[in-house]
Amino acid sequence: MRVLLVGATGRLGAAVGGALKGRGHQVVTVGRTAGDIRADVADPEQAARVFSEVGDLDAVASAAGDVPYKRIVDMTPEDYLRAYRGKVAAQVELVRQGTRHVAERGSFTLIAGVLNRDPIVTGSAAAMVNGAVESFVRAAAIEIAPQRINAVSPTVFTESMAEYGALFPGVTPVDVDQAAAAYVRSIEGAETGQVFLVQ
Amino acid sequence: MRVLLVGATGRLGAAVGGALKGRGHQVVTVGRTAGDIRADVADPEQAARVFSEVGDLDAVASAAGDVPYKRIVDMTPEDYLRAYRGKVAAQVELVRQGTRHVAERGSFTLIAGVLNRDPIVTGSAAAMVNGAVESFVRAAAIEIAPQRINAVSPTVFTESMAEYGALFPGVTPVDVDQAAAAYVRSIEGAETGQVFLVQ
Ligand SMILES: NC(=O)c1ccc[n+]([C@@H]2O[C@H](COP(=O)([O-])OP(=O)(O)OC[C@H]3O[C@@H](n4cnc5c(N)ncnc54)[C@H](OP(=O)(O)O)[C@@H]3O)[C@@H](O)[C@H]2O)c1
Ligand SMILES: NC(=O)c1ccc[n+]([C@@H]2O[C@H](COP(=O)([O-])OP(=O)(O)OC[C@H]3O[C@@H](n4cnc5c(N)ncnc54)[C@H](OP(=O)(O)O)[C@@H]3O)[C@@H](O)[C@H]2O)c1
Repeated sequence: MRVLLVGATGRLGAAVGGALKGRGHQVVTVGRTAGDIRADVADPEQAARVFSEVGDLDAVASAAGDVPYKRIVDMTPEDYLRAYRGKVAAQVELVRQGTRHVAERGSFTLIAGVLNRDPIVTGSAAAMVNGAVESFVRAAAIEIAPQRINAVSPTVFTESMAEYGALFPGVTPVDVDQAAAAYVRSIEGAETGQVFLVQ
Repeated sequence: MRVLLVGATGRLGAAVGGALKGRGHQVVTVGRTAGDIRADVADPEQAARVFSEVGDLDAVASAAGDVPYKRIVDMTPEDYLRAYRGKVAAQVELVRQGTRHVAERGSFTLIAGVLNRDPIVTGSAAAMVNGAVESFVRAAAIEIAPQRINAVSPTVFTESMAEYGALFPGVTPVDVDQAAAAYVRSIEGAETGQVFLVQ
């Protein structure tokens, strides 16, 4: 299949790209600072340019998302707005525009995350956006069928424990490859409107 | 108790105000076009003015929220942003600023809604914001304790069936007073981090 992968140079995105290429898929990568196509997909005009450059697709996979971690008392309205733009609006835009470029039974796979299930201190913006993404996915599934859409919601990655481990006391991390496998399940499988928990 | 009620002139807000007054609480009402204090709480400066005018509080209750209903293909990025501002940012702002004005064991009660559990066509923005609100509530609860925060998530109201009924085939509505009762439970009870389903 021909897959557009947004956030391909990130920790998760690199694993997703590796898993998809290993299964014979053609992967076109997107990022703001690296990738086959350079674009900030949170900007609707740049997202449109991505779709016009890339042509026909079987799947869109997103592993992007940029969210501030602070206590609520230290957050500003702009922090929450940035979280919304970086993880919700950017991914919604991929779907809103992408349905015209993806095959009739093609798929969208978006990234969410554990923090709306199991909150942590400083995680209110992350929880907010993860809940928004999961809920959007459930609602979009019934409109875009027979195209499909799922979310992947991993707990913290083993590979991120050095950076974030202190925020997750007693939490067993998952290897990023397990999250990448959930993308394979979403793209090659037939499910839709699902949130694949990876924990 | 002294309760700030945002959206007090709305269908839900009027029922919440009635229930709270009926139980002897003092209710200060807020809305953009009516209420004891006129303000758009999605604007952080206007929210700040509300809190400085109202003084000490035991509870903040929100029954506001304004979300566009369209198919994804007909939505614009601005529609989703408007939904975020009107239902997520506005309510997050009440908490972000409100913790300094609410009593040590006071509470926040926010409004979500059924559409992230049971999606409908045209409901992708509504689902997105309801999921965001629920998730924010779960995350905020662990930071603001011993202050409390809950969400109320009703299905469609009996009183709204003339307007929205066609979007909810086969769904049994709830009377708006049942949703108002969930606010009483949140404000007078001791639970926190909960989503009270009213369906
Ligand atoms: N790390 C974890 O433990 C963990 C666990 C659960 C969920 N998650 C979620 O997984 C996602 C990826 O996490 P990660 O740790 O892999 O992050 P990361 O290493 O920072 O990677 C993010 C990638 O997305 C790209 N990107 C970000 N915003 C973009 C935009 N607007 N347009 C285009 N590309 C964009 C970045 O490249 P450029 O900077 O070049 O644009 C980068 O390639 C996030 O949503 C995160 O919340 C992470
Ligand atoms: N109706 C239903 O069947 C149903 C079911 C489940 C959930 N809900 C949710 O319940 C909430 C209220 O619904 P409703 O039917 O009662 O709506 P409504 O009749 O339109 O009432 C909304 C109220 O909120 C106020 N308001 C809106 N935005 C505001 C802002 N930014 N700042 C201050 N006040 C604001 C409005 O007054 P002004 O215009 O004067 O500001 C009005 O008093 C919504 O979030 C809705 O999604 C509704």
